[in-house]
Amino acid sequence: MNKYKAWKGRFKKDTSPLMEEFNSSIKFDKRLYREDIEGSIAYADALKAAKIINQKERNLIIKGLKEILKEFEYGKFVISQSDEDIHMAVERRLIKKIGDTGKKLHTGRSRNDQVVTDTRLFLKKSIRKILSEITLLQKNIIKISEREIATIIPGYTHLQQAQPVLLSHYFMSFFWGLRRDKNRLKNCLTRTDILPLGSGALAGTTFEIDRKLLAKLLKFSTISENSIDAVSDRDFIIEFLSACGIIMTHLSRYAEDLIIWSSSEFDYIEIDDAFATGSSMLPQKKNPDSLELIRGKSARVFGNLITMMTAVKGLPLTYGKDLQEDKEPLFDTIDTVSLCIKIFVGVINTMKINHTKIKYNDYILATDLSDYLVKKGMPFRKSHEVVGKIIRYADKQRISLSEIPIEKYKTFSKTFEENIYNVIDIKKSIEAKKTLGSTSTRSVKKQITTAKKLLSLKNTGT
Amino acid sequence: MNKYKAWKGRFKKDTSPLMEEFNSSIKFDKRLYREDIEGSIAYADALKAAKIINQKERNLIIKGLKEILKEFEYGKFVISQSDEDIHMAVERRLIKKIGDTGKKLHTGRSRNDQVVTDTRLFLKKSIRKILSEITLLQKNIIKISEREIATIIPGYTHLQQAQPVLLSHYFMSFFWGLRRDKNRLKNCLTRTDILPLGSGALAGTTFEIDRKLLAKLLKFSTISENSIDAVSDRDFIIEFLSACGIIMTHLSRYAEDLIIWSSSEFDYIEIDDAFATGSSMLPQKKNPDSLELIRGKSARVFGNLITMMTAVKGLPLTYGKDLQEDKEPLFDTIDTVSLCIKIFVGVINTMKINHTKIKYNDYILATDLSDYLVKKGMPFRKSHEVVGKIIRYADKQRISLSEIPIEKYKTFSKTFEENIYNVIDIKKSIEAKKTLGSTSTRSVKKQITTAKKLLSLKNTGT
Amino acid sequence: MNKYKAWKGRFKKDTSPLMEEFNSSIKFDKRLYREDIEGSIAYADALKAAKIINQKERNLIIKGLKEILKEFEYGKFVISQSDEDIHMAVERRLIKKIGDTGKKLHTGRSRNDQVVTDTRLFLKKSIRKILSEITLLQKNIIKISEREIATIIPGYTHLQQAQPVLLSHYFMSFFWGLRRDKNRLKNCLTRTDILPLGSGALAGTTFEIDRKLLAKLLKFSTISENSIDAVSDRDFIIEFLSACGIIMTHLSRYAEDLIIWSSSEFDYIEIDDAFATGSSMLPQKKNPDSLELIRGKSARVFGNLITMMTAVKGLPLTYGKDLQEDKEPLFDTIDTVSLCIKIFVGVINTMKINHTKIKYNDYILATDLSDYLVKKGMPFRKSHEVVGKIIRYADKQRISLSEIPIEKYKTFSKTFEENIYNVIDIKKSIEAKKTLGSTSTRSVKKQITTAKKLLSLKNTGT
Amino acid sequence: MNKYKAWKGRFKKDTSPLMEEFNSSIKFDKRLYREDIEGSIAYADALKAAKIINQKERNLIIKGLKEILKEFEYGKFVISQSDEDIHMAVERRLIKKIGDTGKKLHTGRSRNDQVVTDTRLFLKKSIRKILSEITLLQKNIIKISEREIATIIPGYTHLQQAQPVLLSHYFMSFFWGLRRDKNRLKNCLTRTDILPLGSGALAGTTFEIDRKLLAKLLKFSTISENSIDAVSDRDFIIEFLSACGIIMTHLSRYAEDLIIWSSSEFDYIEIDDAFATGSSMLPQKKNPDSLELIRGKSARVFGNLITMMTAVKGLPLTYGKDLQEDKEPLFDTIDTVSLCIKIFVGVINTMKINHTKIKYNDYILATDLSDYLVKKGMPFRKSHEVVGKIIRYADKQRISLSEIPIEKYKTFSKTFEENIYNVIDIKKSIEAKKTLGSTSTRSVKKQITTAKKLLSLKNTGT
Repeated sequence: MNKYKAWKGRFKKDTSPLMEEFNSSIKFDKRLYREDIEGSIAYADALKAAKIINQKERNLIIKGLKEILKEFEYGKFVISQSDEDIHMAVERRLIKKIGDTGKKLHTGRSRNDQVVTDTRLFLKKSIRKILSEITLLQKNIIKISEREIATIIPGYTHLQQAQPVLLSHYFMSFFWGLRRDKNRLKNCLTRTDILPLGSGALAGTTFEIDRKLLAKLLKFSTISENSIDAVSDRDFIIEFLSACGIIMTHLSRYAEDLIIWSSSEFDYIEIDDAFATGSSMLPQKKNPDSLELIRGKSARVFGNLITMMTAVKGLPLTYGKDLQEDKEPLFDTIDTVSLCIKIFVGVINTMKINHTKIKYNDYILATDLSDYLVKKGMPFRKSHEVVGKIIRYADKQRISLSEIPIEKYKTFSKTFEENIYNVIDIKKSIEAKKTLGSTSTRSVKKQITTAKKLLSLKNTGT
Repeated sequence: MNKYKAWKGRFKKDTSPLMEEFNSSIKFDKRLYREDIEGSIAYADALKAAKIINQKERNLIIKGLKEILKEFEYGKFVISQSDEDIHMAVERRLIKKIGDTGKKLHTGRSRNDQVVTDTRLFLKKSIRKILSEITLLQKNIIKISEREIATIIPGYTHLQQAQPVLLSHYFMSFFWGLRRDKNRLKNCLTRTDILPLGSGALAGTTFEIDRKLLAKLLKFSTISENSIDAVSDRDFIIEFLSACGIIMTHLSRYAEDLIIWSSSEFDYIEIDDAFATGSSMLPQKKNPDSLELIRGKSARVFGNLITMMTAVKGLPLTYGKDLQEDKEPLFDTIDTVSLCIKIFVGVINTMKINHTKIKYNDYILATDLSDYLVKKGMPFRKSHEVVGKIIRYADKQRISLSEIPIEKYKTFSKTFEENIYNVIDIKKSIEAKKTLGSTSTRSVKKQITTAKKLLSLKNTGT
Repeated sequence: MNKYKAWKGRFKKDTSPLMEEFNSSIKFDKRLYREDIEGSIAYADALKAAKIINQKERNLIIKGLKEILKEFEYGKFVISQSDEDIHMAVERRLIKKIGDTGKKLHTGRSRNDQVVTDTRLFLKKSIRKILSEITLLQKNIIKISEREIATIIPGYTHLQQAQPVLLSHYFMSFFWGLRRDKNRLKNCLTRTDILPLGSGALAGTTFEIDRKLLAKLLKFSTISENSIDAVSDRDFIIEFLSACGIIMTHLSRYAEDLIIWSSSEFDYIEIDDAFATGSSMLPQKKNPDSLELIRGKSARVFGNLITMMTAVKGLPLTYGKDLQEDKEPLFDTIDTVSLCIKIFVGVINTMKINHTKIKYNDYILATDLSDYLVKKGMPFRKSHEVVGKIIRYADKQRISLSEIPIEKYKTFSKTFEENIYNVIDIKKSIEAKKTLGSTSTRSVKKQITTAKKLLSLKNTGT
Repeated sequence: MNKYKAWKGRFKKDTSPLMEEFNSSIKFDKRLYREDIEGSIAYADALKAAKIINQKERNLIIKGLKEILKEFEYGKFVISQSDEDIHMAVERRLIKKIGDTGKKLHTGRSRNDQVVTDTRLFLKKSIRKILSEITLLQKNIIKISEREIATIIPGYTHLQQAQPVLLSHYFMSFFWGLRRDKNRLKNCLTRTDILPLGSGALAGTTFEIDRKLLAKLLKFSTISENSIDAVSDRDFIIEFLSACGIIMTHLSRYAEDLIIWSSSEFDYIEIDDAFATGSSMLPQKKNPDSLELIRGKSARVFGNLITMMTAVKGLPLTYGKDLQEDKEPLFDTIDTVSLCIKIFVGVINTMKINHTKIKYNDYILATDLSDYLVKKGMPFRKSHEVVGKIIRYADKQRISLSEIPIEKYKTFSKTFEENIYNVIDIKKSIEAKKTLGSTSTRSVKKQITTAKKLLSLKNTGT
């Protein structure tokens, strides 16, 4: 039993090698090395303030920890087979480096409060990183929306052409969803930014650890109010995974649209070579793999969420080893979401919009016809029915609305007059929209202006 | 084709009866009748303000709608087999009641913006209801925590006795989790409290519908910024389901503890007859069904979340009929969470705590022994090992820590002195905890005081 | 305490009304009334065989049960507010009808073995029903495949036109997936067809209940081997939900294709009026709601699966009240899958295929060009590159493969000869496929023949 | 553009580095190297049989592939940054090794049929491996059941003592669940054991690839019937993940029981040092981490299942890049399930059963009392009530059933006689069980005999 196992005093026998493999988390939690060392440096200061160690010991510990940090950063830290986790690996190395003084570092501390402190430190950084990536995506959406302010596409419901909308209106709809995504992340950040350190295993500690000092050193806004709650809950992780799941539903839906639009039948856009791939067998293929992977990867974020909820739900209080399962879904989600956002930016920034290929049947203006009748006094539900019959007629005749002669219109309703043809106009249909948030150019420009203000971008008067 | 189908003008053939059954949502969305009618009343005002209808028509419509509301409330509204959904049912009835004027109500409106308006109205009420139920639970937790301030239990990690804690400390840990749950719901409420009405099918409308007026009438804090986003996203529902999922992980974990505590082996508590049930076969059984159902029902909330995420994720923009699937998981989650909270209140309010049955081995004080050595200068990691060996020895001898003679202690470390027996004391162990948020009586009382302030309860100086 | 609570002897106080509502399952498990009564009739026979009741008592009980069955079937059974579940409701009514003899029926039986017997009986019927519905769908697929044997569509990968395939080949791909779905259900049926009755609460019973007789009377193929396993596991339900989840992935994917095909941009099919619906606002719309609901409803089956897995996973052995949560996801899944299949049959049976609208760019024949070069000795990977360059050229020139003059072809590779134009032929591309299971007409006809044999349909020599 | 991209002919621009990282699957699919090379070796034979390559070319290719296999096995294969996936990595290396002949290997093949062939080969091996691991677990269960045939424990429902059962009966209940798990895996194996190779990208190929030969060489029992189905479905993976999810529910539930049993309050078992770990802070702790991780890891298998279902569900036919997401959840599930089973074997093989600590209140015999009355002619429901009242009385008096004097018994029912005390006997209660599958020693021995037969173990006449 010459392996470093900090907790082995009580044990007679060695851990089974199979169990060691099963139990070990070092292969994934080593990613927390920076946060673990930052936390320990602050903890050394708190131990010094509590007079558990003296200034010299404090300096020795911090010097040792900083050297270990460098070892990690230069890829020189050697993980030992018996290192259960990042905490024990760092402690083992510290004791090796500085001797018995290293054995004082864990005074009044438990891995239970240590690991969740590390995780919160890591997640705070990750949330901020994702927030800035979303902002980048939003900026690109604004850029495209400004550029394409004159582009009209058919708006779809049920994948059927419904009413004409500005392409910019379509893109700006994504902007607002992303804004809520950011607010969700910010709310989650508030609940992540709580220091658990000093909670010990579950009950607090008998040493005078100044938790407010720790919070200050580690830049936490507040400290946890209850030591049991501090070590046993992972709700902030579930909340984060859920916020990411929603981000992925957004990315996936817009990805799906772009995939459909890049089919040769729609042909509205062409994905750039830089974000497409080919086929090993079919030489002509250019596939929107980037978008398909975004669509597909949303599934793994959902899976991660379910993993985390199920794991947390399944255990009684307080800490259980089940909680070790929190890190892989967390890390995988952070990486997935971050990469998907960046890929999406790349795709929309480079894709070509085939303006001349965007096509619509003028049936898409049926509502304008109906509104025309309403404005002349017909109750809406009746006008809807009248226009429905006109569409049925036109569809049968295989003609467009503008091809129906006025005489024919009058057979459907006496209310129709020559000026009906003015209404059958895509551009006019767009601009006729009067409500706030609608697709009229004026409304979309207003959205863009607001959006730029929200991102503190200069408004260039689009 | 004499059924009321508002959209039938364009169709030659009837809907298949099977399809009618499949498509119909009236069986569950009738629950939105009140919100649907409220929304329509406000919409009538907006139509009047936009001069689409006159004062008389507005009055007629509103009078009709109010009568229909009463029909619903007195259980007198007769749903027709062909009513697809609550919106069409109300419109059909209105036209039946007041004739052609009723046909004007849907002017510039689509079921797309109508249904999500109804849902948001309903969810706003539901969130507020759940918030107040959680507050009730919190109040009861405080009450118990005040009452049981002198009760000590073994705190568990890994379901092994770890360190003694106050029962109040344990209960207060739940308080703080619930506080975060409420904050999550409040954040979600902000994102629910956005008016989509006036967005039409997806593009806005050509009528001068004053959306800010609508927001004021329907008490929405703000209006949606983009009509496509307004009708196509359901992120606020996913967020709500996720917040509820987290609530359920909390309820489930504490329920699990109480189930374990009510086993005859633990016997810490006895569930009251009012919240227990018996066995059809085994006459002696008193089962904690209430708590088991809470534990089990957390699963359905997770399932509802997955249902909603998967449904939303799977469809391109903007509106697709898939979104009709949002209501059942939403309603079921609201009902489940609400009932589970109320049951939990009932259980903890009536359960008996078997103070004399709570038992612990004094090994639970091992950390106090170790801290004793540290305070005399031994590095923690070494003291941990020494105490580990003492435990191994005591365990083998089947004796308690207080039964080990001082001479024996000294064989483990010269540092031990007679006063070691002062440390082996459950009560002292509790009070020796120094950190903020720890389990000492002082700290727990402080938690309770803070908690009461947060709920604006009078502090009675516990 | 005058309510009928079979287990109330041990209890002093009444159940709380809230708890009664929470605990009660009668609102959904009443659906098992037939199975519950069938099970009890068989059980009465077993009690008689074990001499616990005599022939007269047996007759009285069975007569009573049959009357209760009729009450249910004629909608005359009145559920009492205090009926916890279907088992207690039937027992209460039986005792009311026939007096003390009714009190003997539950001898040696527990609701634990009773409820899982009922559920297995119900699920066996349901699996058989779904199997026959899938067969109906398969028959319709064969019918369409035979009818459309000459229809060519572009086969898609990544939603990009990849290679031409027969529409029949496309439809037959669904057939084989459904065949595996049926086999999964049949495998699940084997594991459902196991009688648990006679296992008591968990330990068996001291009465001589002949379980093999029960199995025979209730038409179970075998009996459970272990009473603890019998009452506590629900793996057969999880397996069923999972098999249904897979069915739904199949339905959802084909529904998604048909939705895309019914867009005006693709326009390959037109959903019949009988399975489409209109818009409340947009008069021209005909929406494929039927297919969208199938796509959306797959989500709820996934949710049901997660609900069930999480609920079962979360409880220790043996029976826990959590298991009451099994019924709603089970019933909902059965109903959903059954209805979705029937709707899908309706949709494909009535939809119109717009043969003249199916269009493809001849780039879809690129692989045929490449194969042409390979057959003349060029290594495939090289031919792939050559053809890739040809496509790039043609794409830039906006011409089709057949429009490239032979001289130009030769600049890409000397290997090209005049007969290259023979290869650029959709029909020939199809028939050139040589492998088993490929899209050539011969191969697809063979598939149809095999499929008909599997369904025992007469082969009409297509 | 000097990187090896087999599909680059059609492309003008390079893939973005970010996209390359996003798109690449080599980091996880390299695990399929053996299956990929096996598949290619067989494919070379098929190309030779189809006369696409000659004997010399075939030999050259196979020699090259075998060398590459060795490179992988000796850790010498160098993955290039531009290797998208294992298929392209192997092809690149082959061409590097043997030149233009290597460019012929992919003739008539697509990565679409190649990757699913590799995956099926890999999964077939993995299923067989897990099957044998489950068998090992079953053997250990039998061993323990034979050893502990005389050990009685309280059987629990609702975590309340219900009726006494043999510990062997408890363990054997797991045996039967595992048996169904194996059957599920075997059923899944049948549906995995289908060769897709030769299906090309989606339509088959124009070369005379003998798919039956391929199946024979690669030891597949049958070939896929439809090329579209072959490349686009992943139902066999979902089915596998689901079967594994069920295995994990089983493992998790028994792990949960053992965790509870190893609490000091129950103290029925002691986990061996080899499968327990200690605490970094609390010296006395011995934690059942092994079992907690099994419980926790079930969550990730559920997550993997949801990931896979959602990914597959979300894409139209045929192949989409989303399907690349199938491998990580598959590999992770295989590893998790395999390791959890092995750990479980280790835990139960080494744990100590504290026979003397198993304790029960004799209320657990209440059903025996009730059965006593029934056998004397009282209707069961009445006897249940009588015994319920006796329990209520005893509970209030804090006495056991055997401490109630006969005079008192008679006040509850005249039917009681002196011999009632014979019934209040744990051992007799066990042996009085009469039904097949019950907990009587005879019945449990019979189970063990049957179980051994099923595993072809010698029966030693326990």
